[in-house]
Amino acid sequence: MTLLESIKGPRDLKALRDDDLTELAADIREFLIRAVARTGGHLGPNLGVVELSIALHRVFESPVDRIVWDTGHQSYVHKLLTGRQDFSKLRGKGGLSGYPSREESEHDIVENSHASTALGWADGLAKAREVRGDPGHDIAVIGDGALTGGMAWEALNNIAAAKDRPLIIVVNDNERSYAPTIGGLANHLATLRTTDGYEKVLAWGKEVLQQTPVVGRPLYESLHGAKKGFKDAFAPQGMFEDLGLKYVGPIDGHDIGAVESALRRARRFHGPVLVHCLTEKGRGYEPALAHEADRFHTIGAIDPLTCEPLAPSAGRSWTSVFGEEMVKVGEERPDVVAITAAMLQPVGLGPFAQRFPERVWDVGIAEQHATVSAAGLATGGLHPVVAVYATFLNRAFDQLLMDVALHRCGVTFVLDRAGVTGADGASHNGMWDMSVLQVVPGLRIAAPRDADQLRAQLRESVEVSDAPTLLRFPKESVGPAVPAVDRVGGMDVLHRAEDPRVLLVAVGVMAPVCLQAAELLEARGIGCTVVDPRWVKPVDEALPPLAERHELIAVVEDNSRSAGVGSAVGQALRDAEVDQPLRTFGIPEQFLEHGKRGELLADIGLTPVEVAGRIGATLTAKDARRQAGRPAGEEQG
Amino acid sequence: MTLLESIKGPRDLKALRDDDLTELAADIREFLIRAVARTGGHLGPNLGVVELSIALHRVFESPVDRIVWDTGHQSYVHKLLTGRQDFSKLRGKGGLSGYPSREESEHDIVENSHASTALGWADGLAKAREVRGDPGHDIAVIGDGALTGGMAWEALNNIAAAKDRPLIIVVNDNERSYAPTIGGLANHLATLRTTDGYEKVLAWGKEVLQQTPVVGRPLYESLHGAKKGFKDAFAPQGMFEDLGLKYVGPIDGHDIGAVESALRRARRFHGPVLVHCLTEKGRGYEPALAHEADRFHTIGAIDPLTCEPLAPSAGRSWTSVFGEEMVKVGEERPDVVAITAAMLQPVGLGPFAQRFPERVWDVGIAEQHATVSAAGLATGGLHPVVAVYATFLNRAFDQLLMDVALHRCGVTFVLDRAGVTGADGASHNGMWDMSVLQVVPGLRIAAPRDADQLRAQLRESVEVSDAPTLLRFPKESVGPAVPAVDRVGGMDVLHRAEDPRVLLVAVGVMAPVCLQAAELLEARGIGCTVVDPRWVKPVDEALPPLAERHELIAVVEDNSRSAGVGSAVGQALRDAEVDQPLRTFGIPEQFLEHGKRGELLADIGLTPVEVAGRIGATLTAKDARRQAGRPAGEEQG
Repeated sequence: MTLLESIKGPRDLKALRDDDLTELAADIREFLIRAVARTGGHLGPNLGVVELSIALHRVFESPVDRIVWDTGHQSYVHKLLTGRQDFSKLRGKGGLSGYPSREESEHDIVENSHASTALGWADGLAKAREVRGDPGHDIAVIGDGALTGGMAWEALNNIAAAKDRPLIIVVNDNERSYAPTIGGLANHLATLRTTDGYEKVLAWGKEVLQQTPVVGRPLYESLHGAKKGFKDAFAPQGMFEDLGLKYVGPIDGHDIGAVESALRRARRFHGPVLVHCLTEKGRGYEPALAHEADRFHTIGAIDPLTCEPLAPSAGRSWTSVFGEEMVKVGEERPDVVAITAAMLQPVGLGPFAQRFPERVWDVGIAEQHATVSAAGLATGGLHPVVAVYATFLNRAFDQLLMDVALHRCGVTFVLDRAGVTGADGASHNGMWDMSVLQVVPGLRIAAPRDADQLRAQLRESVEVSDAPTLLRFPKESVGPAVPAVDRVGGMDVLHRAEDPRVLLVAVGVMAPVCLQAAELLEARGIGCTVVDPRWVKPVDEALPPLAERHELIAVVEDNSRSAGVGSAVGQALRDAEVDQPLRTFGIPEQFLEHGKRGELLADIGLTPVEVAGRIGATLTAKDARRQAGRPAGEEQG
Repeated sequence: MTLLESIKGPRDLKALRDDDLTELAADIREFLIRAVARTGGHLGPNLGVVELSIALHRVFESPVDRIVWDTGHQSYVHKLLTGRQDFSKLRGKGGLSGYPSREESEHDIVENSHASTALGWADGLAKAREVRGDPGHDIAVIGDGALTGGMAWEALNNIAAAKDRPLIIVVNDNERSYAPTIGGLANHLATLRTTDGYEKVLAWGKEVLQQTPVVGRPLYESLHGAKKGFKDAFAPQGMFEDLGLKYVGPIDGHDIGAVESALRRARRFHGPVLVHCLTEKGRGYEPALAHEADRFHTIGAIDPLTCEPLAPSAGRSWTSVFGEEMVKVGEERPDVVAITAAMLQPVGLGPFAQRFPERVWDVGIAEQHATVSAAGLATGGLHPVVAVYATFLNRAFDQLLMDVALHRCGVTFVLDRAGVTGADGASHNGMWDMSVLQVVPGLRIAAPRDADQLRAQLRESVEVSDAPTLLRFPKESVGPAVPAVDRVGGMDVLHRAEDPRVLLVAVGVMAPVCLQAAELLEARGIGCTVVDPRWVKPVDEALPPLAERHELIAVVEDNSRSAGVGSAVGQALRDAEVDQPLRTFGIPEQFLEHGKRGELLADIGLTPVEVAGRIGATLTAKDARRQAGRPAGEEQG
């Protein structure tokens, strides 16, 4: 039994001596490397917070004290210390979540994997504690990368103003988010990191200056009034103290004793404190440290020794198809530029950045700024491509609507990880974009069904100069080409039966699902037409007249059923006075648990069998009503 | 002809002498007071930027240089100086917009009235200028209040990092947004404001210290190395310089010469500069200065001498009904707390704040923080009520979804100014909430139809402890009570004909429109049922069975037709296999021009005549088809 295995909860940590703590930290790193190599998951960030997590749980009394982990992927060590050591199905169905989970433990508070939220949560928790008179402390652990997000600023501004409300901010500063952190703040933190010994300098100054009387009062006194400024010169914690936060640091985040001592000081202080801890992402695992791009931020299942993937790659990713085409577009169009929010490589902009370093900007974890600055770039005469994960665009809804669309800016949004993503759980699914963006005037949305379509539609997008365009594609590997047999309006016809009763509208990657559903229906004698509308917003003008020649229309999308493409098709049909029955298939209005994408799609019925079954049942009921002389929709007729 | 009248464009300003400038400023103030008193509009903010606007247009060459006004309601003086002096129909149909407008002038860039965007726009514009090699400067004018918004931080972080890219940030610091600015940043700005003469102190220190040799090198030299810190002590521009921005200020924003000189210095600097101007909101108009609550931020039409409203108040506002009921709720429920984003009075929380000062928080212009901190408050055991204008909630979509809804927090959102608002133009309309929020699992949305319903539904909302709730109501005065004649499920039946063909679903304040439409239809022999679903999300389970007993269903909402309540009803009907024809009435998918609410509703067809006309036409066509033996939806049958 390892020392780690003997830890059943935070209480067990308190009795450990220094040697034990070193052993425990080593146990944890060994466990993490072995466990995460087996299942895949967030490795680098967790290797960096081993000592910090131990110190937090030794100094504070969770769950009375509440520890909020920003972007909860850094909570693996916290899980190990709070009674969760079975990582065998990490991020898989029935296994531990890759993020905090209130279902798993009373020690978990915030499950949201979107960055920069922890400070706001902690502000609310601390206010509630004050109003209710509840004892205890609230602690937010946030990375330097997440501090670049606007929410963090809004929270700091509020936290700093309440001088008497205890709240502890632990900045886990590893100089990175996914990639190295950028911007003015990162430079400021770098200054803080490289400064040492302001106390020594101050003592020296005091000694000298007290003996130097000038202009009626001792110079030391003048300088004492200037203490903060003077202190800033040697250890410029400036920014945070300017806002009104007490600053403690910088602390070596791998020295448990130092971290504990800083946290104890912070706990005693009756007000907001920021503890600045320096940590190393990937600490203790050479291959991670050597991996400059992201220090093994997230890995798939690998051999922990060779770091080779355990499963062969499933094929080309959508991301790489996009990334490659962007370079070609960039070569032809000097006005095309690109923006990423701290995820240059994951969204496929690496090759573009290498080829055109002057034409790409990493704005930090700042989707709002990515979007509003894109409006500025477009107004300034360029065509920006904003590449983000689908779920993170939710952060920039207002900016897309008010800055980009209202100003009719030619900006292309490229959403990777759209639809069901899987292992990252509820907050990583990109299943809302085609719903919430339905209201945006002038926006055109494309859901490419294969690699050729992605290339073609990216090119169509960057041609639009007076409105935003959006492409979305999933996380999985791109499938084989799905050829069109005809075109109606702007829509590709993928299949056409002789005398079709059903029109299947396949949104993007749902094309194969629809084609297989059509096959199943036709085996039952129900002829189908299958179209890929290519551009799903606005609804193609050719759709209502085509729909009118079918008995039933079905829309299948990898997106929320609520207010999605199905609803938009419904509206287009109504507006054309086409009242054929419609059925819509998509993601139900609920948060999805973590699991494999395929498993989740099956769970929610986005399979050929389910789609065909539901359509068949509707037609059967309709036929029965007709035979009984009661045509559908005419009950009162 | 006044001097102002002789100014046809920025060029005419350049030749003016000091005396002329004083005269011009006086002309402008007189014009503003007289003109805005007549039409209503934003008065206080514009009185504060008279000299600043003149100086900007003298130093820079708009439109080659681009001046971006944050929250464009401070652009009236800019309009006067760029050839727009007919304010007779300001904010009215066919008149000048109350915000910058690219249709009006090539000098206008950003029309968005949402705060904190100017820095991001300017960052994009400056990047585009750099890539294209275009000459000129980009200037963002932003208030201290708007700096509390997260977007401003994201932009500052990016702007500061590009040391060689010129960009000028003018902070128009009047210590207020709508109300006094709050938070750590406000305190920091206050420190900057109250500091004078650091240069003098530094010179004195230099003189004294150069004669004091210590420890091997002159003390002055040590202190010179500490210059920034020392400077901070006497003029702690700290925060901005810590980020890497050059700081110029503070400048008296009413001294044209001083502002011009600062702007010229900033223009010469090859990099990002922040010019800190101190201005007085309402400057030069005693009644505004005396009005402590908001310095005449926005006014209706008034007598400029007595400041009495010119038109009698149209009756009780929805806002005041909400505000009054909140006090009652607060008295009964000590766990109910409130949050505003810099708009305590406008959203009606004034009385609550007076009664329970410890239980209300103004978080600044920070809707994201309002929402995420509400999640923390709820998790900490309270029930927060977040009161914002409907259009501004768009800023917090991600937080509502990921922090509040995913965590099943009992938070009530109260949206004032929902639907068509009117005079403030495209970006103030609150016409998207019931669409974009359709996807949020567990969220319940109510659209009260009258004051009694608002009171009742507020109480129902704060009873919900495991999910978010949302109430929305418009800007106009609350109308007379609309009684229910029956209830079906959770829905109020407002009217019921003997043998109804049409089911009218009236969303909130559309109840009177629907009742009148029903009257018109019944005059043509078409019986109607009118229901108010009260809670429009989720769709009431009693709706599909009720719909099935009608020939046609119509949904009428003061919200985007795209993806709105109508679409949600469509989905509910489909899911219940109810295929009766549906027609949806709402706001078309476009940005609305400014004008009176009533005019705009008429323009977009949200009137009884239009609704009844469209329904009548559909039924007539349907009857004709039936008589021709082709039942609707059965063309292939």
